[in-house]
Amino acid sequence: MSVATVKFRARLSTEQVEEGDGLAPKFDDRGLITVVTTDSETGEVLMQGYMNAEALGLTIKTGEAHYYSRSRQTLWHKGATSGFVQSVRELLVDDDQDCIWLRVDVTGGASCHVGYRSCFYRRVPVGSAFEKLQSDGHVDLEWTDRDKVFDPEDVYGDTPNPTQL
Amino acid sequence: MSVATVKFRARLSTEQVEEGDGLAPKFDDRGLITVVTTDSETGEVLMQGYMNAEALGLTIKTGEAHYYSRSRQTLWHKGATSGFVQSVRELLVDDDQDCIWLRVDVTGGASCHVGYRSCFYRRVPVGSAFEKLQSDGHVDLEWTDRDKVFDPEDVYGDTPNPTQL
Repeated sequence: MSVATVKFRARLSTEQVEEGDGLAPKFDDRGLITVVTTDSETGEVLMQGYMNAEALGLTIKTGEAHYYSRSRQTLWHKGATSGFVQSVRELLVDDDQDCIWLRVDVTGGASCHVGYRSCFYRRVPVGSAFEKLQSDGHVDLEWTDRDKVFDPEDVYGDTPNPTQL
Repeated sequence: MSVATVKFRARLSTEQVEEGDGLAPKFDDRGLITVVTTDSETGEVLMQGYMNAEALGLTIKTGEAHYYSRSRQTLWHKGATSGFVQSVRELLVDDDQDCIWLRVDVTGGASCHVGYRSCFYRRVPVGSAFEKLQSDGHVDLEWTDRDKVFDPEDVYGDTPNPTQL
């Protein structure tokens, strides 16, 4: 296997960024870029995370999703602990190159640390549904998935929960 | 039409946030929450944006996507200028409630200010495709869509381009 390092282009003009052929990602003031990860078969959004330059380079080189964990402040090869590796079928970048879209296949079928297939398992009623359901303006969530794929305690043990209040 | 204001729950515990029935979104230190918007029919990611509390409340109340524009620093009713309103079919929240997923129908079929249907019209080669294609480590993008749905100059005129270098 080649050991070429992935290099990014400098961001020189709006036209180059939006209509050019070179990868010139914009990392924010924390050095991070937003990532949206969907199931390559169903189109379901599995998770939303972040990459730093190292994680983006490793994802491109290896074809397996790497992120930057904000809670643990470290590079995160998704699945290294849980076994739920994400194989990247397609990696796309948006118009101003400040967001990455990964279309992945997930070994074992789970992407959520709580144990569900997707991180998005609750729905918010909108429009007329909200007007019908709310009483004092508070919103009740509707569950779209109640079946956990795995037990987080079995997989993560005493690892701190990444959810921040 | 009722004029109920949308209210959010306080974030009291990890269990409540992850496994509870109340909407308790986490806005970051800028007062924003990340939003992923997909086409309700195809599953295609159309755009990634942000909402503040007002934009999230208005989206829930009206069923039309409202965002917060970071470049213009203002509430943004998507489609108010372009006509490409997003009707929300489903609004989901993720495990730790710091990300919103909108499944939308788009009037006119375009969501990208550059003129394309989706903001994601360029692909990055990964894994063996990257190893084959790169020469000095720089990444060449592959275009997945070359057909603009509209001409940005006709729609936006002299409005400043939101892309930041």
